[in-house]
Amino acid sequence: MPMNIQFPSKLIEEAIHEFSNLPGIGSKTALRLVLHLLRQDKQSLEKFGESVARLAQVRYCKICMNMCDDEVCTVCSDPRRDHTLICVVETIKDVMIIENTQQFRGVYHVLGGIISPMDGMGPSDLHIGSLEERVKQGNIKEIILALSATMEGDTTNFYLYKRLNMYHSAFSTLARGVSIGDELEYTDEITLGRSILHRIPFEAK
Amino acid sequence: MPMNIQFPSKLIEEAIHEFSNLPGIGSKTALRLVLHLLRQDKQSLEKFGESVARLAQVRYCKICMNMCDDEVCTVCSDPRRDHTLICVVETIKDVMIIENTQQFRGVYHVLGGIISPMDGMGPSDLHIGSLEERVKQGNIKEIILALSATMEGDTTNFYLYKRLNMYHSAFSTLARGVSIGDELEYTDEITLGRSILHRIPFEAK
Repeated sequence: MPMNIQFPSKLIEEAIHEFSNLPGIGSKTALRLVLHLLRQDKQSLEKFGESVARLAQVRYCKICMNMCDDEVCTVCSDPRRDHTLICVVETIKDVMIIENTQQFRGVYHVLGGIISPMDGMGPSDLHIGSLEERVKQGNIKEIILALSATMEGDTTNFYLYKRLNMYHSAFSTLARGVSIGDELEYTDEITLGRSILHRIPFEAK
Repeated sequence: MPMNIQFPSKLIEEAIHEFSNLPGIGSKTALRLVLHLLRQDKQSLEKFGESVARLAQVRYCKICMNMCDDEVCTVCSDPRRDHTLICVVETIKDVMIIENTQQFRGVYHVLGGIISPMDGMGPSDLHIGSLEERVKQGNIKEIILALSATMEGDTTNFYLYKRLNMYHSAFSTLARGVSIGDELEYTDEITLGRSILHRIPFEAK
């Protein structure tokens, strides 16, 4: 349906406009969503509207730059987590994904991106200063660099290593290798090559 | 990503919950949309929220049951339209689609559905009484039945004809035939059969 469609109501038109501004939502999908909402009662619509408007209240954790409702996020304020182990990630989505594995008991630091000169992202655009402060204050045993396995990720890893190495923390990155369930035939050569180089002892269970 | 993911913020969780209630929006898409919204400023978020909440103010046109911002919709209040020609449709989406063709200068009547015993929709669940009132008041020359080309649509057409025939208006339905641009090879047999029965005079231009 082309965008020059005439809407019977300005209110409907405005709502469709707002939805079609979202990523991956075209004018047809926006119309479908708004027609669905029009069948909801006043309370549901107000609840939906408020939940969107209240997103403006979401704050950054003053320690790790994760998003949270208070000054400090639930991870940083949890005494049961290992605060000497920092996992450095690009976005809050990465925090959610790693939390979902339930395999990590340390804390995070969200950079807010990655060093990418092509996109105009330099070290000063990222939350690296606050990371350096945390490491400088000592008592950080290990920094896990959990960035993308891309050239930009490698660049950022190298930059962080150079800048933070003087504070005597250990550095590690995520293990690279063949994904569980993958067939060798469909694994790319670079991953397969690294998997052979960084092979791990076989554990007979 | 399974639904048991831990969100760093209750506000984010609530917004994701609201979005994932929309049709065709799963939890992954909802997360992507909310992360997009989190990058917007306070004004944009409030504007979005208000546009959703204000959908509760959308009203039904008291004449044709189309949706509108006032008592009477823009079509019904337009003196340049032919008010003796009523096009009966199922939903307001159908009104938008027909308006978009710019081929119809009459007015509408939105039934709000179709007679479908399987879905528990009977004549009394539709806006048929108000249509009868309009036709009874006279001066309606033609009623165009623009419902779905399904068994339910045919049933509803037949019901409307039986109920409204006594008021001496002419009845018509949308032309059925081969879509423009379609190849005969891919046209279904019933459509093709009807297209031959209801063939139209050839116009040499």
